[in-house]
Amino acid sequence: MKLYEKLADDIEALVTQGVYRPGEKIPSVRRTSQHHRLSITTVLRAYALLESRGVIESRPQSGYIVRPHGPIVAAGLAPSKPLAISASVDVSRLVLSTLRSIRSDEAVPLGSPYPDPSAFPYQRINQYANAIARRPGLWHGSEELPPGARPLIGQIAKRYLENGLSIDPNEIVITVGATEAINLCLQAVAKPGDVIAVESPTFYAMLHAIERMGMRAIEVATHPREGIDLGALADILKTQRIGACMVMPNFQNPLGFQMPDDKKRELVELLARYDVPAIENDVYHELYYGGSHPTALKSYDEKGLVLHCASFSKSLSAMYRIGWAITGRYREQVEKLKFLNTLTTPSIPQLAIAEYLKNDSYDHHLRKLRKAYAQQASLMKAMVKRFFPEGTKMSEPVGGYVLWVEMPAEVDSMRLYQLALENGITVGPGYMFSTTPSYRNFIRLNYSYPWNERIEQAVITLGKLVASCMRSAA
Amino acid sequence: MKLYEKLADDIEALVTQGVYRPGEKIPSVRRTSQHHRLSITTVLRAYALLESRGVIESRPQSGYIVRPHGPIVAAGLAPSKPLAISASVDVSRLVLSTLRSIRSDEAVPLGSPYPDPSAFPYQRINQYANAIARRPGLWHGSEELPPGARPLIGQIAKRYLENGLSIDPNEIVITVGATEAINLCLQAVAKPGDVIAVESPTFYAMLHAIERMGMRAIEVATHPREGIDLGALADILKTQRIGACMVMPNFQNPLGFQMPDDKKRELVELLARYDVPAIENDVYHELYYGGSHPTALKSYDEKGLVLHCASFSKSLSAMYRIGWAITGRYREQVEKLKFLNTLTTPSIPQLAIAEYLKNDSYDHHLRKLRKAYAQQASLMKAMVKRFFPEGTKMSEPVGGYVLWVEMPAEVDSMRLYQLALENGITVGPGYMFSTTPSYRNFIRLNYSYPWNERIEQAVITLGKLVASCMRSAA
Repeated sequence: MKLYEKLADDIEALVTQGVYRPGEKIPSVRRTSQHHRLSITTVLRAYALLESRGVIESRPQSGYIVRPHGPIVAAGLAPSKPLAISASVDVSRLVLSTLRSIRSDEAVPLGSPYPDPSAFPYQRINQYANAIARRPGLWHGSEELPPGARPLIGQIAKRYLENGLSIDPNEIVITVGATEAINLCLQAVAKPGDVIAVESPTFYAMLHAIERMGMRAIEVATHPREGIDLGALADILKTQRIGACMVMPNFQNPLGFQMPDDKKRELVELLARYDVPAIENDVYHELYYGGSHPTALKSYDEKGLVLHCASFSKSLSAMYRIGWAITGRYREQVEKLKFLNTLTTPSIPQLAIAEYLKNDSYDHHLRKLRKAYAQQASLMKAMVKRFFPEGTKMSEPVGGYVLWVEMPAEVDSMRLYQLALENGITVGPGYMFSTTPSYRNFIRLNYSYPWNERIEQAVITLGKLVASCMRSAA
Repeated sequence: MKLYEKLADDIEALVTQGVYRPGEKIPSVRRTSQHHRLSITTVLRAYALLESRGVIESRPQSGYIVRPHGPIVAAGLAPSKPLAISASVDVSRLVLSTLRSIRSDEAVPLGSPYPDPSAFPYQRINQYANAIARRPGLWHGSEELPPGARPLIGQIAKRYLENGLSIDPNEIVITVGATEAINLCLQAVAKPGDVIAVESPTFYAMLHAIERMGMRAIEVATHPREGIDLGALADILKTQRIGACMVMPNFQNPLGFQMPDDKKRELVELLARYDVPAIENDVYHELYYGGSHPTALKSYDEKGLVLHCASFSKSLSAMYRIGWAITGRYREQVEKLKFLNTLTTPSIPQLAIAEYLKNDSYDHHLRKLRKAYAQQASLMKAMVKRFFPEGTKMSEPVGGYVLWVEMPAEVDSMRLYQLALENGITVGPGYMFSTTPSYRNFIRLNYSYPWNERIEQAVITLGKLVASCMRSAA
């Protein structure tokens, strides 16, 4: 057992025994560090672990307290309030150039959108791939026409069923990652010039899909822990024709929220009243920190108006880029567009993943991943709280692996991005998540990588760079 | 040595020794069969082999003659003469449903567009893929942003250079097969509603790209051995705005021709005069039967107006679907569209193929493939000549692995397709290759599979089915 785990266990035992009571302050990081002769980092890790276990929580100005029973305190981020005006989209150039510099293997990848590749069971999947490639020759074998490889479609439907969602396998179309799924679904339901409603901030993949088709985006007010504002959306639906609504109800990138179930149902019903299709990006659905799998918008869909997109890229195998769409009433259109767009998805990876799902312990793999991400979330939050300037606010992700950080208003995230790069650190500037500069002073931080000294030092350096941006702006 | 090879060698020796002279008839199949106590099939194979060697050729009504010096005789197919009227495109539904039934592993796949998968060195490529997946962990490793993996781009540029075409590696963008390359190139240069000039018949992938973007196709008269008619194209360019011209100058699917070099140059110059981009689909470029690699339109491109698309799917590894575009002056647009369309192409297959190209004998593999396809072409032609009804005409493919067969006018290829399916045989109906029913009585036959009794019997059965279609139409 590591030092910080031991410390966390000791403190948890005191809480369990009632020595520290709900709402009561526990000793500060500094005092505990002195007291136990442990480094600040070790104590922060222990407190982060306790936070991830729900034992304590940090309160502004008052340090850490034993968590009271009842609702979680607000995370500090205010709901967004974008103007209800649609805009053409041209964000991809910025995103591409940013992601490019983020890919340097020398820099600490806090700006990366990707999960840690070492977390995936590639050896097992490759073993299956090899066995499949060696199967005695049939006439074909190298291609799978849309909708995709039957065994994989079956395994995906089975997985949804186990997660409480009954899916018609005939609605599933396999794609090149969720990116293609989102593109095809949007193209199936709307046409160039149409106005598409999105969250604010929104994941740039959604904006890319809109840009690709020459559509327009309208950003909708979004609550940092509950998702898209249904009142604001209803107002928009009353006044203009909306071609589709694209949302990420579970562990939204960048906010990390999970929409409450009743809000998901209301959203589906609201859109159905206006006959507006919903495109649901659910790529993080397996990466929840709570006790149970989140529901999908799709599970409240009675009219076939929800097009659900997901992939294995965040949970099992980024390198094969196998995604899918569950197409509702648009099955035929999506399938045809898939055929037109990339003809087929390579079959060997599809069959190899199907074998993995059938024979290996995907659940065991996911439990490890969820536990690691939950702990790393707490560590990242604790480090940002400790080392970023006063006035910094952040999201409360309950799944996935990104943190959304609001810095003081005078900090420009592009300036910070440049300074960070010069210091061998990358961040995701807020400009990528909107058609407007509304998130000028926000950054997205990735915490999928196993925690280490380099990451720790990078967060400390970032905090200093933020402070220097504030000074130079003053 | 096999019996038919022995027979072919014996006859070739007689020709070399001047026993049979140019233009002279050699004994008929039936007589040779009786004479040598060999089966009809064996003799046909021997004659096909001699034909592929250029020693003899078959003449209507007069059997086989020793090939005279001078130009090859016409193959019998007349140049196409489509109406110069643009049409909206909606061919993908037919193609998808046809390809689906063609994929049955029970049926003899004469209708398949795919090469024989057993011809590809998957074992070697998979070995490289495994080694790459095991490389010690970097931060990233699972994704390659556009333009794609540098080592592969370098190998592709090197290969072009060896084939006599000097390419700027900065123009190369890696894609999911040539399908995506064609789509992105077309989207980069033209917009919905634009009129796109294509060959007639044209490969349906070109029609799909036009359909995907809601553009219109105009089919241009095409010569069965020389390609698109430059006079007809010039007339069209004079009278209407053309958004792009999409052609397949080498081993066109379905006609199998190779455009002469001077015609390629003239085509590039003609289009450049009107500032019309050319999209060149060159997926079969490595599969030539003649002595040398064909030139590409791209090699005559001085203005950056030729967008060249190709892939490894026909020559090395269909199952990984790695293609590329050489983008001319449209590099930035194509790269951005790639990013929007599928984000990234999986990196492991890219790196594995790069390793294969670097370390293994791609040329040796290709020599075997070319030799096999050339022989199978001769066999397929000989069998169709022998067993299809009088009035049948066919293409003279000089590369690739498909034969285009014109049946008597009363035969409907969809009817034949249905009958063939019932007999466990697939064919590619002519309707797939045009926006009009101009190729109602044409079929495409695949000869990529190693010749065997089942294929032979299938061609014999097809011949009977064609005859029965003629009778029922009469």
